[in-house]
Amino acid sequence: MQTTNVTGTRSAVNQMPMPTGMNPTMQACIDACNACLQACEECYVACLNEPDVQARIHCIQVLRDCADVCSMASQYMSRNSEFSQQFCNLCATICDACAAECTKFQDTHCQNCADICRTCAEECRKMSTTKM
Amino acid sequence: MQTTNVTGTRSAVNQMPMPTGMNPTMQACIDACNACLQACEECYVACLNEPDVQARIHCIQVLRDCADVCSMASQYMSRNSEFSQQFCNLCATICDACAAECTKFQDTHCQNCADICRTCAEECRKMSTTKM
Amino acid sequence: MQTTNVTGTRSAVNQMPMPTGMNPTMQACIDACNACLQACEECYVACLNEPDVQARIHCIQVLRDCADVCSMASQYMSRNSEFSQQFCNLCATICDACAAECTKFQDTHCQNCADICRTCAEECRKMSTTKM
Amino acid sequence: MQTTNVTGTRSAVNQMPMPTGMNPTMQACIDACNACLQACEECYVACLNEPDVQARIHCIQVLRDCADVCSMASQYMSRNSEFSQQFCNLCATICDACAAECTKFQDTHCQNCADICRTCAEECRKMSTTKM
Repeated sequence: MQTTNVTGTRSAVNQMPMPTGMNPTMQACIDACNACLQACEECYVACLNEPDVQARIHCIQVLRDCADVCSMASQYMSRNSEFSQQFCNLCATICDACAAECTKFQDTHCQNCADICRTCAEECRKMSTTKM
Repeated sequence: MQTTNVTGTRSAVNQMPMPTGMNPTMQACIDACNACLQACEECYVACLNEPDVQARIHCIQVLRDCADVCSMASQYMSRNSEFSQQFCNLCATICDACAAECTKFQDTHCQNCADICRTCAEECRKMSTTKM
Repeated sequence: MQTTNVTGTRSAVNQMPMPTGMNPTMQACIDACNACLQACEECYVACLNEPDVQARIHCIQVLRDCADVCSMASQYMSRNSEFSQQFCNLCATICDACAAECTKFQDTHCQNCADICRTCAEECRKMSTTKM
Repeated sequence: MQTTNVTGTRSAVNQMPMPTGMNPTMQACIDACNACLQACEECYVACLNEPDVQARIHCIQVLRDCADVCSMASQYMSRNSEFSQQFCNLCATICDACAAECTKFQDTHCQNCADICRTCAEECRKMSTTKM
């Protein structure tokens, strides 16, 4: 199977062998959470450095909450915690809030981050409702 | 550019557009840290469930420290923290210790995790010594 | 006002001036989460080193989940996150599960940790249901 | 032994029995890290809401790094990780940087946070150099 690396920005590390046996729904959700935490951290710094930072205080706060909850969700799932589904349910709520906040700003980093947050929210909802 | 997905276990989320502009050394290190924290969490659970768990207490403890430091390194780099390099330097030390510990056990999860820890240690050392 | 330090193990740092203005319900919950994460980490190491570690695998896993969620709850509250109450609600669930698990073991560290987890669960429930 | 609660802001939870046997240098450092992460989170929100937020971007970034590293140092020490001393050494560096940054601002929350960061840096240095 071959996959196209759309953006060329992901490194060779993604092609490293991964531990076997991870449930595909969970793996998709882990990857979405990792992508989301990175996007939120990047968007967080970018927002802090925008000239209209004062209009973005709430966005900056939600971006941080979203990065932190995605990071912990990724760890809970990776160790197959019995609380993964409840954790992902909360993560979906925060990702949705973050997407809604980022959508308000027209710059590329916020629009991009909003997309990634929405994808992550969907994956977290799938995770939290899938019979494991 | 096409890349081969060696194991088929990585999901489509990896092909999501990522925020642009990330330094390639840093992106490689973020990806290595994310892969390493997942491998450590998976190996941690697997070790806990091995019949010789009593021989693996130290390994289990180092795996946890390694997962946690990789997770935080990934966040520090994603927000381009001024302490990223110092953080990655410590992360490399802990990844090396974790690789050394996992190498002692012959099962697939430990051998696999040792490889991923070594890769992560190398990426973290590159990160911590690259002029940014 | 004078307070009795029951155990003599808490350091002078607790008498440091703290930032003013924290809501008392939230401060009580932050302190409970900090105490709980420490108790869980200590009990985690103690369980790993018990001769019957194989009987404690589930307890060890819940202790780790509990330490991690308490740590993040403490940070969410400290920054007065809008998601603090939802986060504390989940934290209460995991603390209850951890208390139930620790109660099964007769050693001092598990009995002590179960008490601290129960207190933390109560504080988290208060936090999650108090009108802020 | 009786201790005076200087500020009256710490809750009854501090008088809870704690697990026995924690090394006093480590307990002092855990308490300092917990106090510091809370002060940093509170100062972080306060800075974000100051009218001169644009002058505080760097301070806001360091406050976040400091809160995160203190939180993880507290967890490493609580489980008596073999990497606690190296972790506390890095934590001291970041606490010093945070104190230096907060000192630049005259408001109470920054001056208070600077004091708490300095205390935490000292405790972390003690921790990292004490023979355990």
